[in-house]
Amino acid sequence: MLKFLTAFAFTLLASSLHAADPLPSWNDTAPKQAILKFVAATTTEGSPEFVPVPQRIAVFDNDGTLWSEQPVYVQAFYLADRIKALAPQHPEWTTTEPFASLLKGDLKGVSASGEEGLLQLVAATHAGMTTAEFEKSVTDWINTARHPKTGRLYTDMVYQPMLELLRYMRANGFKTFIVSGGGIEFMRPWAERTYGIPPEQVVGSSGGLKYEVRDGTPVIVKLPELALNDDKEGKPVGIQRHIGRRPIAAFGNSDGDYQMLEWTTAGAGPRFGLVVHHTDADREVAYDRESRIGRLGKALDDAAAKGWSVIDMKNDWNQVFPPAASDAGTLP
Amino acid sequence: MLKFLTAFAFTLLASSLHAADPLPSWNDTAPKQAILKFVAATTTEGSPEFVPVPQRIAVFDNDGTLWSEQPVYVQAFYLADRIKALAPQHPEWTTTEPFASLLKGDLKGVSASGEEGLLQLVAATHAGMTTAEFEKSVTDWINTARHPKTGRLYTDMVYQPMLELLRYMRANGFKTFIVSGGGIEFMRPWAERTYGIPPEQVVGSSGGLKYEVRDGTPVIVKLPELALNDDKEGKPVGIQRHIGRRPIAAFGNSDGDYQMLEWTTAGAGPRFGLVVHHTDADREVAYDRESRIGRLGKALDDAAAKGWSVIDMKNDWNQVFPPAASDAGTLP
Repeated sequence: MLKFLTAFAFTLLASSLHAADPLPSWNDTAPKQAILKFVAATTTEGSPEFVPVPQRIAVFDNDGTLWSEQPVYVQAFYLADRIKALAPQHPEWTTTEPFASLLKGDLKGVSASGEEGLLQLVAATHAGMTTAEFEKSVTDWINTARHPKTGRLYTDMVYQPMLELLRYMRANGFKTFIVSGGGIEFMRPWAERTYGIPPEQVVGSSGGLKYEVRDGTPVIVKLPELALNDDKEGKPVGIQRHIGRRPIAAFGNSDGDYQMLEWTTAGAGPRFGLVVHHTDADREVAYDRESRIGRLGKALDDAAAKGWSVIDMKNDWNQVFPPAASDAGTLP
Repeated sequence: MLKFLTAFAFTLLASSLHAADPLPSWNDTAPKQAILKFVAATTTEGSPEFVPVPQRIAVFDNDGTLWSEQPVYVQAFYLADRIKALAPQHPEWTTTEPFASLLKGDLKGVSASGEEGLLQLVAATHAGMTTAEFEKSVTDWINTARHPKTGRLYTDMVYQPMLELLRYMRANGFKTFIVSGGGIEFMRPWAERTYGIPPEQVVGSSGGLKYEVRDGTPVIVKLPELALNDDKEGKPVGIQRHIGRRPIAAFGNSDGDYQMLEWTTAGAGPRFGLVVHHTDADREVAYDRESRIGRLGKALDDAAAKGWSVIDMKNDWNQVFPPAASDAGTLP
């Protein structure tokens, strides 16, 4: 009996030791070791690198860092679906570019309309409604739209190792922020339940806003003009505007995150930078320098000199996406 | 001996009961009762008005709500002191308006230059340097500059009842934000130690920012153009941009806070709005409809219909400012 109890106790201990690994989807390679070391150093009182809780700010890019950005940004799928949904109210779109090309599924035609065309598409789908209407539209869409290749909900196309990292850093007193080139109002409706990141900790590209009282009811209207392009040099600007102090840790995956990583890691004291390198063609998509979406060249070239960790997804992550959730039963 | 111990125990009990009043500087009048009732209703599980912690967002105006704004905004004193400090490097200011008038202490002359003149003064003192340089300048100034009438540090010219309210709401799971017409970069350097509000929870008027790498060192430069005028209709815009969800409680003191109060209290579910009415000429300054600074008319007129509480400072607060701190010994 004693032997049985001892064995039982050891089993419990072993399972609690296993449960104690905060990053089970990370292989025991250099990036995981670097993360654990950084968190231990900054959170251990008496450590020469100890950082008080209020200064433990960690920023995460979204597209390609927290969730998949291939074959195109998720927000582009939303935009295309909105154009299709709104088309019956806009018969003129069938003969006006870039709407006509988009409605025919001719992406080359859409590309041909350039930045001007893209801005027209954004204006037609992301402005001219109230923030509450836009939030409802995004929520309805993200709850039902599915990735064209995997058939999974987009909110299931998130990286399991990064979900673990977000939780681990928060459990150690870090405040986690998204700093993304994506639209701030597009991310906020689902970031809290997907990542545990509340709306006030989401920084993104944003358009103009206008407060109005309509028939006695106050509303905030989304305007077509761009207020912040939260990409490249815009990321440190978004960080300063929204957070107001320099993060001590930054996580990105493309050259669009270069300045955010640079700004974060150039500060005094302990700093952490990490670049997710998409190397796994089997479990996800392998891409870097030549990719139209999430191009990664300069940040990869400079990572060693800057002291940034680089995730080799194929070798450093033993799991990429969360296990299929209950929704898997309804896959097409 | 038993009698002594019993008396001692009662003394302890009485003092702990006294300590348990979270708002000791508030008289037991209607506004205090309304605050206590709102917080109890929204934080008691099972209450029909229960609000989950993440949605407990409370926004506070700064000038005239958390600290004194008379005879003029504190930031105007900073601006004037900076112009004087920079004048030796700008000999041309002695003959150029509005600088010349300001340097002579001729406020009428400054006023005569209108909004255009004010923008020139702001550009000369609030732009053209890095955010780190500006932060240092504000910190150095706020640590030493003193109120012209009381001789106290400006950070001691805060309202003791509001400090208690901030603490009380945070102790009940509310996240407290400043939403002020004042400059966001002007408030952040001292809001954390003065109010317990971290930089990322300060919303204010903001200028343009630009990221640059200077001789290998990344900096963020403050630009003269205005990015957000966080006053009146701008307050709900600032709330949406920075917080991304509608607060459930708002505290202000002037018509500049009208839209923030309106936006907050028009939402569904339990809501709380409060207007600080400066009625105490003895302990502070009595002003409302006719004041050039912090004018309060429409918000006072509409408070009853909107269900907003109104603080009558003279009658509702038994203390206005914190007791003189150790710095009192160095008063001029």
